[in-house]
Amino acid sequence: MTLAGVLAPVLTPFDDRLEPDLPRFLAHCRKLLANGCDGLAVFGTTSEANSLSLEERERMLEALLKDGVDPARLMPGTGCSALPDTVRLTRKAVQAGCAGVLMLPPFYYKNISDDALFRSFAETIERVADPRLRIFLYHIPQVSAVPIPLTVIERLRAAYPSMVVGLKDSSGDWDNTRSILEAFPGFRVFVGSEKFLLRNMRAGGAGCITATANFNAPAIARLYAEWRSLDAERLQAEVDQVREIFQSFPLIAALKAALGWPAVRPPLLQLTPAQHVQLLARLGPVPYTK
Amino acid sequence: MTLAGVLAPVLTPFDDRLEPDLPRFLAHCRKLLANGCDGLAVFGTTSEANSLSLEERERMLEALLKDGVDPARLMPGTGCSALPDTVRLTRKAVQAGCAGVLMLPPFYYKNISDDALFRSFAETIERVADPRLRIFLYHIPQVSAVPIPLTVIERLRAAYPSMVVGLKDSSGDWDNTRSILEAFPGFRVFVGSEKFLLRNMRAGGAGCITATANFNAPAIARLYAEWRSLDAERLQAEVDQVREIFQSFPLIAALKAALGWPAVRPPLLQLTPAQHVQLLARLGPVPYTK
Repeated sequence: MTLAGVLAPVLTPFDDRLEPDLPRFLAHCRKLLANGCDGLAVFGTTSEANSLSLEERERMLEALLKDGVDPARLMPGTGCSALPDTVRLTRKAVQAGCAGVLMLPPFYYKNISDDALFRSFAETIERVADPRLRIFLYHIPQVSAVPIPLTVIERLRAAYPSMVVGLKDSSGDWDNTRSILEAFPGFRVFVGSEKFLLRNMRAGGAGCITATANFNAPAIARLYAEWRSLDAERLQAEVDQVREIFQSFPLIAALKAALGWPAVRPPLLQLTPAQHVQLLARLGPVPYTK
Repeated sequence: MTLAGVLAPVLTPFDDRLEPDLPRFLAHCRKLLANGCDGLAVFGTTSEANSLSLEERERMLEALLKDGVDPARLMPGTGCSALPDTVRLTRKAVQAGCAGVLMLPPFYYKNISDDALFRSFAETIERVADPRLRIFLYHIPQVSAVPIPLTVIERLRAAYPSMVVGLKDSSGDWDNTRSILEAFPGFRVFVGSEKFLLRNMRAGGAGCITATANFNAPAIARLYAEWRSLDAERLQAEVDQVREIFQSFPLIAALKAALGWPAVRPPLLQLTPAQHVQLLARLGPVPYTK
């Protein structure tokens, strides 16, 4: 099975001590899969993964597997700022049989050269040293401040063709996504927002990994299922409307508020009570999920 | 004892497998103290601290203490992107009796508000929950991409006057340093380069925490010792010359090359052989350290 379609970068529920709330996390994961998500990109930006310790991420992954989630549906985020951390999490994901990993570049030092960026990924791959490894590069320059240019994608694909198999483009820059799709046929490109889902599918993309799937999975999954239909533009417009509402607020905090577990870890902030009321009013009484 | 003067953000020597080389690290720390450094800011940007795992940093700190270094001379970097990691390292430093900690803000999410930044530090302080804690805020916006504005410094000082005691300004923006010194008398401000050492001392600063102290400690320490003398401008010009040479190269790689252990972890790159030769030629045969 090749993982494609709609993946949720799963939100991490916290209890009132800001510890990961495992039962709620597992229930949310089950619900996302029941509501049409093809896979779970746990430990992404939306998951506040870089606000979690390594042990917390490992414990959450173990709990998911123990809960019976098929690892072929999992694409955990494993890119950290420190090489040994990235290697440790990636190895764990590969050994668990995960479909792939979503890998940030090391994100502390800025303005690093193409050579340095290539070497960062290459060194990780050499150390993980497992032919089952499947990497999706994670391009999210507005957060990581470390972009992954086409020149580096090209070098990595040439050096590790069976392992560097795709990318998540969260830049919000459709021209960049299109350039990647055109330059690398067969490369599995996910967009970071359902806003670009129809365009991405029409251009040969693999799907989307989108924060709002945490809330609006059925509609986004339907758009993915019917993207070749005459109805596609209307379905796209529908999911865009919901996206639009969430994007008027700090996105991660808004999604958590809408799901009823508003706690976030610093440096994020919960919605204010006024924002919370406003969000719920704009979402209205529509039942989004089962 | 109040830690002030010239602190070295200690380089981390790596062996040929890119593991921290502990004996070399300890020898380098002893040498820095013998050569006039007042203290050691281990685990800073220059130390590639965010390329080290938590366990590696803990092991290195333990080794230093076991080697007999006085914790009153230590200001380890403890700011990570994940709250539990920052709390764990900070607690360890406080319990070891370190003079203070140098604390980066959480650096994954960008464009965070003053409230969010305040809450990040406040939550760490509340969790460490130890009256011995002394925090030096670490302002290095060109690397962390998360600046610490004066408004947040003011709020933190008001909320935790005995704990938020100083700042390292690595912005290279003297106007910012001067504004902080003027706004907060008694706040212990270190500049991130010896280039600003004389200006900082004349304006009431506490000293400098500078990468080049790893190589040029005696001259920088002499400038600090004699900053009130008639000779100060000349001493400043002398250390500026050496700084200038290193700044023509990638700084961390150049310092490691000059010290004879050139290995760096990704995403940094070693100097090329041509750069290495050029650097040594420009430094000349002057004996910089004992």
